[in-house]
Amino acid sequence: MNLTDIGIRAKEATPIMRTLTTAQKNVLLLKAAGDLLANTPAILKANAEDMERGRANNMPQGLLDRLLLTESRIKGMAEGLRQIAFLDDPIGEVIQMKKRPNGLMIGRKRVPIGVIGIIYEARPNVTVDAFGLCFKTGNAAILKGGSDAISSNIALADCLRSSLASCGLPEDAIQLITSTDRETTAEFMHMDTYVNLLIPRGGAGLIRAVKKNSTIPVIETGTGNCHIYVDESADIDMAVAIILNAKTQRIGVCNACESLVVHEKIRDRLLPVLAARLHDKKVEIRADEQALPYIENGVPASEEDWGREYLDLIISVKTVSSVEEAIEHINRYNTGHSEAIITESYANAQKFLDEIDAAAVYVNASTRFTDGFEFGFGAEIGISTQKMHARGPMGLEALTTTKFIIYGNGQVRP
Amino acid sequence: MNLTDIGIRAKEATPIMRTLTTAQKNVLLLKAAGDLLANTPAILKANAEDMERGRANNMPQGLLDRLLLTESRIKGMAEGLRQIAFLDDPIGEVIQMKKRPNGLMIGRKRVPIGVIGIIYEARPNVTVDAFGLCFKTGNAAILKGGSDAISSNIALADCLRSSLASCGLPEDAIQLITSTDRETTAEFMHMDTYVNLLIPRGGAGLIRAVKKNSTIPVIETGTGNCHIYVDESADIDMAVAIILNAKTQRIGVCNACESLVVHEKIRDRLLPVLAARLHDKKVEIRADEQALPYIENGVPASEEDWGREYLDLIISVKTVSSVEEAIEHINRYNTGHSEAIITESYANAQKFLDEIDAAAVYVNASTRFTDGFEFGFGAEIGISTQKMHARGPMGLEALTTTKFIIYGNGQVRP
Repeated sequence: MNLTDIGIRAKEATPIMRTLTTAQKNVLLLKAAGDLLANTPAILKANAEDMERGRANNMPQGLLDRLLLTESRIKGMAEGLRQIAFLDDPIGEVIQMKKRPNGLMIGRKRVPIGVIGIIYEARPNVTVDAFGLCFKTGNAAILKGGSDAISSNIALADCLRSSLASCGLPEDAIQLITSTDRETTAEFMHMDTYVNLLIPRGGAGLIRAVKKNSTIPVIETGTGNCHIYVDESADIDMAVAIILNAKTQRIGVCNACESLVVHEKIRDRLLPVLAARLHDKKVEIRADEQALPYIENGVPASEEDWGREYLDLIISVKTVSSVEEAIEHINRYNTGHSEAIITESYANAQKFLDEIDAAAVYVNASTRFTDGFEFGFGAEIGISTQKMHARGPMGLEALTTTKFIIYGNGQVRP
Repeated sequence: MNLTDIGIRAKEATPIMRTLTTAQKNVLLLKAAGDLLANTPAILKANAEDMERGRANNMPQGLLDRLLLTESRIKGMAEGLRQIAFLDDPIGEVIQMKKRPNGLMIGRKRVPIGVIGIIYEARPNVTVDAFGLCFKTGNAAILKGGSDAISSNIALADCLRSSLASCGLPEDAIQLITSTDRETTAEFMHMDTYVNLLIPRGGAGLIRAVKKNSTIPVIETGTGNCHIYVDESADIDMAVAIILNAKTQRIGVCNACESLVVHEKIRDRLLPVLAARLHDKKVEIRADEQALPYIENGVPASEEDWGREYLDLIISVKTVSSVEEAIEHINRYNTGHSEAIITESYANAQKFLDEIDAAAVYVNASTRFTDGFEFGFGAEIGISTQKMHARGPMGLEALTTTKFIIYGNGQVRP
C-alpha cells in the first residue's frame, strides 16, 4: 500500500473517530488490552524474528534490550491501555463559554486534532502506547517504527486492528507503515495534506531529522541539558540529596541533571561533601578552575562541557558569583527542558522561576519529576522542549485542539 | 546588517523583555502612540516616496489604497497602540496550580514566546500593529514587510525604536529587515535558531510559500471558504438576513460566506426570495442542477466552484437531502475557517456543532463574527486556520506560551 492510500484512509476514519463516545473508546481500549494478552504467543514469535535479525546484525546489547518483548512486557503494554481507558476523556469539554453583548454565546470546545503521525525507533511498546493515547483522544494514528522492530510492530498493529474490527470501529484508527526505507520516511514527513501533527519519539538524531525535513507541524521532544543551581543560601543536605537524585536515580533520561551551577560562597561547604557522595556513585566530575580545588578526583571542564547532555555518569560544575550569573549561564546553555534552584532565599527562588526559560523550573526539588505521570497527567506522549502548542510533559490534552462554537439567534454583523 | 546579527540582537533583547512589568509596557505603548502622531509629517513624507514608486510601477489601485497613509490612518495606528495598552496583560498568569501527593506545587505560568517573526505585504499599518501585540506580550519582533512599503516601514520602525530608547527599553524589541529581495526572505524563513514563531500576514500565495519553506514553526492564517447550511427547519427570514450579511456586509474578507448548502425540502421557499435579495446586491449565484430552477438569473455551478474562495460578489449553491450530507460536503470543501447552520432543530444544531471540522462553528448567526474584536479579545494578530497552538481568531494569548513552575521543599524522586 502506498503512503497516499494510507493518508486517505486515515483521513476517512476521522469523521467517525470525532464522534466516538467515551464509552465506545474505553470498551475498545479494554478489549485491545485483553486481545494483546490473548495473542502473546504470536507477538513473541514475531519479536523473536526481530531479535534474531538484530543479533545477526550485531545490534548493541542496549538496543537489543529495548527491542525484546517478554510475557511480562506484553502484560505491561496491556496494562498501559487499561490505564488510558480509566483516564478522563478530554474530548468534548467546553471552556471559557461567555455571552457577548449581542447575545452570542461563544465557547471553545476541545476536539481531536485529526490524524497524528508518530516516527519512532526500535521500541515496539511505542506502537501500543501511541495508539492508546491517540485513540482515547479521537485521533487516527499513522505509525512508522524502526526497521529493526518491523515484525513485532506488524504483529502488534494487526492485533490492535482486529480489536477495532471486532468492536465495529474503523481499523484505520491505526495504520503501520511497513516500508522501512529512508525514502518512505522522507515521503511520510511531507504528507501535510493528510497528517495534522507529527511526533518523533527517539534519539536526538531522529528528532533533528524530523524537525528539519517535515512539512507537517512537529512537536519536538527530548534532549535535556538540565541544570541545578545551588544558591549561596542553600541547605547543604537538601542540595546534596537533590543532586544525587537528579544525577544518579536514573541516568540516560532527559530529565537527569547534567550540570551543576554553584555560588562561589557555598562551594567550600558543598563541593567536598558532594564530590565524595558522587564519587561513591562512580560519577565523574568535570569542573571549572574555581571549583576544581574543592573536588577530589575532579577533571577540568572545557567550554564544550557546558552544552553537553551526557546521559552518563558525568556531571559538569560551573562556578558563579550571583543568581543573575547563574540564570544567564543556564539560559545560554540549556535545552529548554528542566532547571532547578536550591535556595532558602525567597527573592532568588522567585527570580529563578521568573527568568529561567525552560519547560519546567523547580525550586528545591529534583529535575527528575518532569514526567507526565509525576505531574499527574496519568499518561505521557513525550516531553516537549519547544514553545508552540505544548510545552513540557504532554498528556492527553496535548493531542487535542479546540474549536470555537457559537450559539446565536439570528445575529448579523452591523 | 545581516540576518544573523538581527537574530542575535533579538535574542539578546528577550531576557529584558521577559521581565518587563505591565506598567513599563503600557507606558511605552502610550509613548509610542504619541510619538507616531508627533512624527506624522516624516511618516507621510516616507509614504509619499512609496506611493510615487508604486504609481511609477503601475501598482493596481486596490494595492495603492492599502499602501497609502494619511493623517487619519496614522491616528488610527496610534489609537491601536493605545487600545493594546488598555488590554489585560496575559503574561505572568499562573493556571492550574495544584498540590501533588508528595507536596510539590505544580502550576503553569504564562510567559512570552521569545522572538516572533512577521512576514507581510504592502500594508504599513501591520508594522505598528504587529509590534504592539508582540511588545505587550513581552516578545521581540522581527518584521519583514513588502518592498513596496519599505520607506514607510523604515519611518515607522525608526519612530517605534526611538520611543523604546527614550523609555530606556531595548530598541531591538522591534527590528525591520530592510533588504526586500527574495533571498533575504528565504533566509529569514530558516532562522529557527533565533526565531521561535513565524506568522505570515497577507494573501494565500504568501501564506503557502511561508508554510512550505519555513523551518520555524508557522501559524497559518487566512483563507476562508465559509459555508452556510440552511436546514429543512430554518426560519426563512433569519436565513435570508444572515446569508445577506455574511455574503455582502463586506466582500474580500476571509469570514465572508462563499457557499450556500441548502436542504432540498426548503429550497422552493428559500431560494426565490434569497435570489432576488442577492440579485439586488449584484451577487452572482452559481447553483447545482437541483437549485438552479428556483434561482432567477442563476448560473450553473461546476465541481470547481465548491472549493473556491471567491472574495467577490459570487456565491455557490449546493443542494443536499440531509444534515449528514451537508456536514460531509462542508468537511470536504471547507478551509477550516467558519461554518454556520441555520436551523430550528435542536438535534441538527448540536450535530452540526459536534461534527463540523472548522475553527468556528455557528448556529443561527453570521460567519462574519469570526474576528478577535467580535469575540471580545480586544485585539487580533490573525485568524488561525490550523490546529496547532492556536485555532480561530488569535488575540494576545496566542503570542504566549507557558512553562511549568514547581515549588518544592526537598523532594527527590523515589
